[in-house]
Amino acid sequence: MAREIERKFLVTGDGWRTNVVRSRAIAQAYIARGEQASVRVRIVDDAGGRLTVKGRVSGLSRDEFEYDVPLEDARALIGMRSGRLLAKRRYDVIEEGRLWEVDVFEGEFSGLVIAECELEREDEAVTRPAWLGREVTADPRYYNAALAVQGLPSDQ
Amino acid sequence: MAREIERKFLVTGDGWRTNVVRSRAIAQAYIARGEQASVRVRIVDDAGGRLTVKGRVSGLSRDEFEYDVPLEDARALIGMRSGRLLAKRRYDVIEEGRLWEVDVFEGEFSGLVIAECELEREDEAVTRPAWLGREVTADPRYYNAALAVQGLPSDQ
Repeated sequence: MAREIERKFLVTGDGWRTNVVRSRAIAQAYIARGEQASVRVRIVDDAGGRLTVKGRVSGLSRDEFEYDVPLEDARALIGMRSGRLLAKRRYDVIEEGRLWEVDVFEGEFSGLVIAECELEREDEAVTRPAWLGREVTADPRYYNAALAVQGLPSDQ
Repeated sequence: MAREIERKFLVTGDGWRTNVVRSRAIAQAYIARGEQASVRVRIVDDAGGRLTVKGRVSGLSRDEFEYDVPLEDARALIGMRSGRLLAKRRYDVIEEGRLWEVDVFEGEFSGLVIAECELEREDEAVTRPAWLGREVTADPRYYNAALAVQGLPSDQ
């Protein structure tokens, strides 16, 4: 089990592209939701499958349990999804020594770009790169699970 | 991925106890449910954890994906359940060459005893031991997921 502490921002412009260190294609979907958990399946670079149980969000944190699964299982599990399949390319961007994951969504969500950074502590200071827009950490409409069910927020 | 084909019956009396070959304690809970899947976590003999994604029931069959998980993960996942924790002792019973799993429920469900047998084909003939009561294969109230959410059926 891991405890994930992260902040999340909309991205404006392409300034981050000069600092990309690597990228990968992600296809993901949500197969089930409970009172205290949601269950996601993800395929990375069409090569590896992963099943993730995420706990409830509390502040900037949530518990997360991740398990590698065979690719063919992941494909079948994605077929059992509720809501939409999310396709995005995730870019790892290093800016002032911090790793940002910039997700460029595709298909129906084309135009949506979200940057996340993972923190050690909830009160850790974050230097905001110039290409960061509005913070959406506390906006549940930008959870990937909500995007899958509700689609793009109307103010996007 | 496995495809599970099974039939399920209420059990009347103790006639099955003479043919028990082994037993184990099972604690299980459901952490999430989707349009096409439910996700269960199980601890067997307080030693091993397992995460299972079950697909929709179609006739006597359903798809099932099972993954071993660390015991401490399973305990934390059970803490993230929706609905009740189900505790039961599962007895493997061999009768006329067929394996029956007899689940004796505990706690709130005390008195409920369900026998299941797994089939190779949906149309496979099943010789019914004398201790089998009413078949509940098609009765969704007896799915473990339904027991966890709705409790014991009122006609039980």
